[in-house]
Amino acid sequence: MKAQLYESLIEYSESNAYPFHMPGHKRQADRFSMLNPYQFDLTEIDGFDNLHEADGLIAQVQEKAEKLYGSGESRLLVNGSSGGILAAIATAFHPGDWVLVARNCHKSVYHALEINRLRPVYIWPEKNREYGFFMDISAENVKEALKRWPRIKGMILTSPTYEGIVSDIRQISKIIHDHGGICIVDEAHGAHLGQYSYFPESSIKGGADMVIQSLHKTMPALTQTGLIHVQGDQVDRRRLGKMLSTYQTSSPSYVLMASVDQCLTWALSEGKEAFEVYADRLGRLRQAIHRLKHIRMPEIVGADPSKLVLSVEGTNLSGKAFYDCLREDHHLQMEMVCGSYVLAMTSVCDTEEGFRRLFYALKAIDGKIMEGNIRFWNVTESFREPFSCPLMPPGEAAERPVEKVTLSQAIGHLSGDYIYQYPPGIPILAPGEPIDASICLQMKQVLEAGQMLHGGYDPEQDQMVVIKK
Amino acid sequence: MKAQLYESLIEYSESNAYPFHMPGHKRQADRFSMLNPYQFDLTEIDGFDNLHEADGLIAQVQEKAEKLYGSGESRLLVNGSSGGILAAIATAFHPGDWVLVARNCHKSVYHALEINRLRPVYIWPEKNREYGFFMDISAENVKEALKRWPRIKGMILTSPTYEGIVSDIRQISKIIHDHGGICIVDEAHGAHLGQYSYFPESSIKGGADMVIQSLHKTMPALTQTGLIHVQGDQVDRRRLGKMLSTYQTSSPSYVLMASVDQCLTWALSEGKEAFEVYADRLGRLRQAIHRLKHIRMPEIVGADPSKLVLSVEGTNLSGKAFYDCLREDHHLQMEMVCGSYVLAMTSVCDTEEGFRRLFYALKAIDGKIMEGNIRFWNVTESFREPFSCPLMPPGEAAERPVEKVTLSQAIGHLSGDYIYQYPPGIPILAPGEPIDASICLQMKQVLEAGQMLHGGYDPEQDQMVVIKK
Repeated sequence: MKAQLYESLIEYSESNAYPFHMPGHKRQADRFSMLNPYQFDLTEIDGFDNLHEADGLIAQVQEKAEKLYGSGESRLLVNGSSGGILAAIATAFHPGDWVLVARNCHKSVYHALEINRLRPVYIWPEKNREYGFFMDISAENVKEALKRWPRIKGMILTSPTYEGIVSDIRQISKIIHDHGGICIVDEAHGAHLGQYSYFPESSIKGGADMVIQSLHKTMPALTQTGLIHVQGDQVDRRRLGKMLSTYQTSSPSYVLMASVDQCLTWALSEGKEAFEVYADRLGRLRQAIHRLKHIRMPEIVGADPSKLVLSVEGTNLSGKAFYDCLREDHHLQMEMVCGSYVLAMTSVCDTEEGFRRLFYALKAIDGKIMEGNIRFWNVTESFREPFSCPLMPPGEAAERPVEKVTLSQAIGHLSGDYIYQYPPGIPILAPGEPIDASICLQMKQVLEAGQMLHGGYDPEQDQMVVIKK
Repeated sequence: MKAQLYESLIEYSESNAYPFHMPGHKRQADRFSMLNPYQFDLTEIDGFDNLHEADGLIAQVQEKAEKLYGSGESRLLVNGSSGGILAAIATAFHPGDWVLVARNCHKSVYHALEINRLRPVYIWPEKNREYGFFMDISAENVKEALKRWPRIKGMILTSPTYEGIVSDIRQISKIIHDHGGICIVDEAHGAHLGQYSYFPESSIKGGADMVIQSLHKTMPALTQTGLIHVQGDQVDRRRLGKMLSTYQTSSPSYVLMASVDQCLTWALSEGKEAFEVYADRLGRLRQAIHRLKHIRMPEIVGADPSKLVLSVEGTNLSGKAFYDCLREDHHLQMEMVCGSYVLAMTSVCDTEEGFRRLFYALKAIDGKIMEGNIRFWNVTESFREPFSCPLMPPGEAAERPVEKVTLSQAIGHLSGDYIYQYPPGIPILAPGEPIDASICLQMKQVLEAGQMLHGGYDPEQDQMVVIKK
């Protein structure tokens, strides 16, 4: 009998597939290395500190994070950014509180709304009309929301987004602070921000009260690791400590924690030079991609350039076919396909060779495709109010009896579950939200494009989970 | 700059210290091995399945668990047993529900009570009068509790305990089922149960609805891994899936999951022989220890023999001095010291050499100590009601304003936080419980014995967190 998962991982790592996806260490085992983890995996014995009350070796790792990111206090995460987000929201808010939530947040934010029985006011970013992804959260709209719902106690938003869109955290956190609220930023995709001037500044510099980062997404650390940074005096730090030990195991992995140590040590000692080389290489790649004829890539002021959004909208190639071609013909694995674009995640660990392979693959595909009428984004986008306030908050919806109906019957019901694509894990529907025709259309479109939907809809049976009327 | 945490782990692994503690692989890097994890650490790309909707390689690992443990359905855990316990309790119960809770549960159970706003009725196991640890949960008392509080919707208990005490899950789960409730067993310390006839049967065989196991504690898997088993038709499996993806990161570590695969593959193919050798070796070690003069070890019918509880009660040596002597003079690291005993955790990966070193160290210490009056346990133990029902459930207590007072002033207040030793992580006090003189005495005694208290009491400042009256 073989350990097939382990064997498959090793086999894959020995193939010539190149990763334009997480983790950010890009399997650069020459540069980043650990011995066989069974050799040193440990528990909280004398001298090896305790994650949940660190004052020794683990505290020293956290101090490195504080130094690298210039935060007031940094805590290590071993249950991913998801665990950090659950802890941050549970710390900042109390049951029944009204919270302003960027509607393009990751589902862990919605889970925290449920658990803590919060009342969200959703704030919707605009969608980019050309590429279809969510843009930044408008500071003006934040101000407007606080005027309309003065009971709001704080805000949570994602910056940068999966596609690298950064919101103006300086202005937004100031508006929230003037209102007396707490500003939490899910910066899971931005642990590299501020490491070099080519990249936008981190939300930590922007003045957010709590900032959650995945280390494995864009930095060289093992998957499932992250950091939560807290600054200022708005956040009850004792409560944060308690919530971190609620949502994270009492047996944290020393292998994961050692990887965080290695990552931060590397960043403090060799990071600057490495980021300089990376920025230069990335800048050249982006310039070269812009010279292609059909494949387009957005160049948005202030955005994180590390994410390559590569669109074939309006050609004769679908997003899914583009993604499959890169993977099967060129052995380049993208992070995701979404509508008519694929997302290539780059990191400081990418090689010149990797970038060259991507460019020549894109060039080859670009030479074969032509203008066409495969269009994805312009169908669903209609004018949308910048706010929505669900009749039933997710925490209440989650406890209601549900039933299963067909998608067309579901119109007019409230959703009984999440519906989302993964990645990116942003709910198309959250529990308690009304199901209307445009959402059904959006879901059908995703499925027709050959992409998967997760959560409360089973396309084979055409069965959708809704709240019983 | 060095990655000091990583370096220290490697340095320690190269010392001659022998681990009588978790993880259960006992750093047997010859028998269990992985390549440098940076080489194969991956994310949810095509072909590598998704933990939260497994139907490929990860589903196959789960099938191995179902086969090994004979469970209806097994799901993989990457946020420790803590994450599994949060998910199980959130699945089984709804806000406001009354739940019967063994008072010697791990703090993650209390966290789940808080999060889900449950109303616990605590059921207290008796304490062993000679050794001071908690014994099993009495099935008679469970029956009595259901009679007194018929609104109880189910039960959660720990079996085996840290010290290896096993409750009669067959009888208890039958009583709970007859009442129409759900029975959840925290079997974090019992992933090896049922692997060989020398060990008690698992709660899975005993008929519990959900059973949570840590794989790293007693089996050869990396720290932070575990399994949740579910059987029967009492548990809403869709809800369990949702809760598992709430309390576990959306970026689970493939390194951890591969380790689970390796562990289960090993158990299915080589486990039987290995457990036979281990059982034989362990039986001989236990016999030899019983021949010592002063150091005593309980031999409790039905208990898990893998845990060696080694007591120096009533000698001239304190538990702490015993622990330090084993560690400093003999380089044998115990799992914990508690009162006047130390706990040596053994596993199937222990070596003959390791057992020999432990025995000769114990023999040497036994030859030097003599009868004395260092007594720990008989002081605090007085008659206790088998049930307690806190006036304020932990979820409500957690939201109340708190203040800090001295320990003696705290008497008569309700606790505003947890107070616990770690290990084992069982609260001496939970939020909302009344603080009385006997608890203060117990806390003082722990501190005077040179052991640490975690949570809401700062002994240096003599400051205790209590709920404002």
